[in-house]
Amino acid sequence: MKLATLKDGTRDGRLVVVSRDLTRYAEAGQVAHTLQFALDHWQQVAPALIQIAERLEAGNEPNLPFREQEAASPLPRAYQWADGSAYVNHVELVRKARNAPMPQSFWTDPLMYQGGSDGFLCPHAPILLADEAYGLDMEGEIAVIVDDVPMGASYEQALKAIRLIMLVNDISLRELIPSELAKGFGFFQSKPASAFSPVAVTPDELGEAWERGKVHLPLLVSLNGKPFGRANAGVDMTFDFGALIVHAAKTRNLVAGTIIGSGTVSNKQDGGFGKPIDQGGNGFSCIAEIRMIETILHGVAHTPYMTFGDRVQIEMRDQKGHSIFGAIDQVVTPKIKTS
Amino acid sequence: MKLATLKDGTRDGRLVVVSRDLTRYAEAGQVAHTLQFALDHWQQVAPALIQIAERLEAGNEPNLPFREQEAASPLPRAYQWADGSAYVNHVELVRKARNAPMPQSFWTDPLMYQGGSDGFLCPHAPILLADEAYGLDMEGEIAVIVDDVPMGASYEQALKAIRLIMLVNDISLRELIPSELAKGFGFFQSKPASAFSPVAVTPDELGEAWERGKVHLPLLVSLNGKPFGRANAGVDMTFDFGALIVHAAKTRNLVAGTIIGSGTVSNKQDGGFGKPIDQGGNGFSCIAEIRMIETILHGVAHTPYMTFGDRVQIEMRDQKGHSIFGAIDQVVTPKIKTS
Repeated sequence: MKLATLKDGTRDGRLVVVSRDLTRYAEAGQVAHTLQFALDHWQQVAPALIQIAERLEAGNEPNLPFREQEAASPLPRAYQWADGSAYVNHVELVRKARNAPMPQSFWTDPLMYQGGSDGFLCPHAPILLADEAYGLDMEGEIAVIVDDVPMGASYEQALKAIRLIMLVNDISLRELIPSELAKGFGFFQSKPASAFSPVAVTPDELGEAWERGKVHLPLLVSLNGKPFGRANAGVDMTFDFGALIVHAAKTRNLVAGTIIGSGTVSNKQDGGFGKPIDQGGNGFSCIAEIRMIETILHGVAHTPYMTFGDRVQIEMRDQKGHSIFGAIDQVVTPKIKTS
Repeated sequence: MKLATLKDGTRDGRLVVVSRDLTRYAEAGQVAHTLQFALDHWQQVAPALIQIAERLEAGNEPNLPFREQEAASPLPRAYQWADGSAYVNHVELVRKARNAPMPQSFWTDPLMYQGGSDGFLCPHAPILLADEAYGLDMEGEIAVIVDDVPMGASYEQALKAIRLIMLVNDISLRELIPSELAKGFGFFQSKPASAFSPVAVTPDELGEAWERGKVHLPLLVSLNGKPFGRANAGVDMTFDFGALIVHAAKTRNLVAGTIIGSGTVSNKQDGGFGKPIDQGGNGFSCIAEIRMIETILHGVAHTPYMTFGDRVQIEMRDQKGHSIFGAIDQVVTPKIKTS
């Protein structure tokens, strides 16, 4: 089943069921008016939503054309957004670029930060930026939405609680990160609102590509229309989503609708940290990685962060080349000061 | 106006209007069924809620006895909980206890972390703890709930966006903090669910005690029935709530219902870091502070963190001695492993 939230002027938008090929949608309001409502009552409402999806595929449900531009993030606002850093290659690279050794424990104890969840950008919304000097970067990631997870949940409980899968652009303001992290309390200003893919899908939609909490498909990231990354999300993921959820739930319950992110998808290649696509590599899911490799190789980074007018697209295609989640497609745009 | 949320088996509870003396409540469901709904539509619904409050005070509104035990946190779950550390005395003490110099910038650039907001404890709920070795501590704080705040908001915009004020117990697992902060991504497992006071009040309810984003009253913290802290929340607050909101909104919008916390209320005394109440001081709003002072004075902390059966109460009284927000009243209780 594929679900989306259409913008309708309300804070939570309107839940719809989307056809597998992303061309049509059917209303779901009779079952659940918002995705959060559906997640709050999943056991009760999921069967009825699945029926709508089946009728839509069979051509037996009233429907309208689905346009990604009309979609909000599946959860336009959420009660929790906790983002891991499951691709330890990415973390190793960050450390290496600044000559800081990576603790061995990073291979067994996941990094995770609490992100802001009160408002997400629409998948095709501009990224409003007040100052290019903030060093805006995209981060292509996978995320899951979970049902209620009790404190101290086991790995199997965690895996079973995964209801939906999406893509994320975890927008980062790189030049604000060092001073913010140096303060010791983690990210805040350096992680503005994220954007999620137009469509969230149940794990069964991924078929064999979904296996034990990993998505075994390349994450396609483009920068200004050119392929920038195609790292496989199932490769080098040190902590699968089951492990990330267990980590998040160690000392507290997670409430239905909690979003857990994978962190930047990142592959090792040829025994090294990764190579650009135009050099035959899998490229990168964020600009920071290529800058770190440039720093390691040449002592200085020359690829700039995103500036006004730059465009990022993040997508994932199935074995047949069909888009699974629709595309995140955003242009960096000056924020005009209004106050 | 004083508002509370009664537990009713739903995730968001039921909004009620509470009398100034906290003895009676009137239903508000005809106007707004939940506090989040009221915040989502504040301009439209606040006048009607104020009318209910006025009729309740005048004895002209059907009402029932208000019992704090029946209250959830005013927002049982929220879209954002961002907690500052506005009492820099507290931060200075933390640093001094581990012989780390405090950067000068800490006096001008607020510390703030993104807390988990998907589920808050009820004000009289037990604090379920899996392991006493986690080092459970209370943190008595003030918090405000804001309306929508645009990215880049000014200080005056920020102050005007404050809708409600509450107390918080920002529960911390002290022994998990050092290794978690060392990872660089801030708090996660070390900050389990917080609890808020039974009642949230509009700023006017504080009269002259509310001034330019500060609450000029002592925060009363008791441990096992004995006074432990009475630090004045209006004293030594380096960053008032206006400044904290400006900080939070620097790179993103804040959505209505966002909760901003003050951090542990903490007063300097006699030119020093603070003194226990039984030595004539204002005491402390968390155990960590007295442990840090013990460490500074004697090289070792001897006051233990909270263990099973320990009880914390957090309250604030007006000039006449009447409770303003009701009391947070929680007992540390073993979490039985169910998985």
